[in-house]
Amino acid sequence: MRSSTAVAVLGLGIMGGPMANNLLRAGYDVIGYNRSPAKVANFVEQGGRGAETIAAAVHDADVIVTMLPDSPDVEQVVAGEDGVLEHAASGALWIDASTIRPDVTVRMAAAAADKGIRAVDAPVSGGEAGAIEGSLSIMVGGAAADVDAARPILEAMGTTVVHVGPAGSGQTVKAANQLIVAGTIELVAEALVFLDAHGVDAEAAVKVLAGGLAGNRILDRKAAGMIAGDYTPGFRVDLHHKDLGIVTAAAREAGVAIPLGVVVAQLMGALRARGHGSLDHSALRLLVDELSGRARS
Amino acid sequence: MRSSTAVAVLGLGIMGGPMANNLLRAGYDVIGYNRSPAKVANFVEQGGRGAETIAAAVHDADVIVTMLPDSPDVEQVVAGEDGVLEHAASGALWIDASTIRPDVTVRMAAAAADKGIRAVDAPVSGGEAGAIEGSLSIMVGGAAADVDAARPILEAMGTTVVHVGPAGSGQTVKAANQLIVAGTIELVAEALVFLDAHGVDAEAAVKVLAGGLAGNRILDRKAAGMIAGDYTPGFRVDLHHKDLGIVTAAAREAGVAIPLGVVVAQLMGALRARGHGSLDHSALRLLVDELSGRARS
Repeated sequence: MRSSTAVAVLGLGIMGGPMANNLLRAGYDVIGYNRSPAKVANFVEQGGRGAETIAAAVHDADVIVTMLPDSPDVEQVVAGEDGVLEHAASGALWIDASTIRPDVTVRMAAAAADKGIRAVDAPVSGGEAGAIEGSLSIMVGGAAADVDAARPILEAMGTTVVHVGPAGSGQTVKAANQLIVAGTIELVAEALVFLDAHGVDAEAAVKVLAGGLAGNRILDRKAAGMIAGDYTPGFRVDLHHKDLGIVTAAAREAGVAIPLGVVVAQLMGALRARGHGSLDHSALRLLVDELSGRARS
Repeated sequence: MRSSTAVAVLGLGIMGGPMANNLLRAGYDVIGYNRSPAKVANFVEQGGRGAETIAAAVHDADVIVTMLPDSPDVEQVVAGEDGVLEHAASGALWIDASTIRPDVTVRMAAAAADKGIRAVDAPVSGGEAGAIEGSLSIMVGGAAADVDAARPILEAMGTTVVHVGPAGSGQTVKAANQLIVAGTIELVAEALVFLDAHGVDAEAAVKVLAGGLAGNRILDRKAAGMIAGDYTPGFRVDLHHKDLGIVTAAAREAGVAIPLGVVVAQLMGALRARGHGSLDHSALRLLVDELSGRARS
């Protein structure tokens, strides 16, 4: 059954690559495209089909999944010259798994509708490990019928798939997600430096903090690296900085005060400005160390 | 065996009352004291012994547990006239479960040592529910031998009991705990108002946020109340405001920058100044609503 459904995946990077592999494993007929052709060759080695152009990838696709870095990339690949909307068949379903600005999503969904193409925004949380394991959390915006049509595809890539509202809503929830994640990393960073400065055993402290109302996924998954000073990505500061730009713009647009959100956006920007953009976002601890005169070698 | 160990509990409030009950249930000979005698009468009804003065409570006690609101209360009850240090037997073990300033704890532990009384600081996390269930997280500071002696008592009141360092360390970890908890509540509040302003279904959003890297205990336990506008305490804004004063003073003393910590301390103070001190700390959402011109009736 599924092998009759042709899925084009545009963007075979750290996230898109393993997501395309999970679609293959679920039995879909998957054709991959990427700007740099090495990743396409790699996907073909995994058993997928490869395309040299967007047009070739989407021409016969029932479903098109995009997994791209930022809003301009999605605008270019989807609405640009020789892009998705120019070459996809009417009636195709476009699932955008990228994290981009909600207002861009709304605009692009309308442009897709003009061409008879159904659009669903489905940004993901869970990182590279979640993409590989197929255990992503996916926040989905769009019309109910389109989200229902997308669900089998999404469930091949994630374990928590929730329809949160109309077009753009998935991106809005992802923005809220990125606000909470960045803020929680910063809170844990402040707590760890505070404990360190007072001579408290950080590993014992993390154990007891994780057991109470302070418990969170950052303490569970990131604190050990933050104590060891290991900031191998994971999710890069550059990308989280981009996401916090989306959060602050969307909050401003809606007239919502996000006092912690704007402070952590500034801190993430400062961390990047100091040349740490390619580290994991948990490197916010580096900045707290530096601000506290406790920079470690 | 345990019935031969006499435990005095000073402070039978929302937390101290159920903690004393759990000591009774574990088989200890418990004598309770409280400034307002109604709570002592209530404890006697539960099967405990009551004392009318601190002197009477601690005179024959092997272990003394204090559970008091703030640093001056502990200083008064322990080191004040007719207090614990004046009347407890040499060799007694004093466990302070209150949340107070780490520097006060260090000073009081030294004063206790001068009288031959061993001191352990053991602030708790988990709230009224955790106190009733005996499932508190307890962060313990003190000499290893004294912490070992205190452990059976602490394990009658909590499930996670971790020795984090010398005298005062328990308070330092509790301060870090209160920093993370307040910050996480504020992040969730900002996210909920942001989602609301964008017309997204908050309950669906919380479900997917809780499943990813944004997952935390506040989303699990407090978000439903914050969506419903139910701010029944729980843990009062007044007390969390007091705790954030401890955090900011201790950070300043150690020269540690806590940019999110100081902002949320200000927000908690503003919430209190607006007359909401007796609400649950999750009422930080009220303030974000007000700052965003979205006050709800």
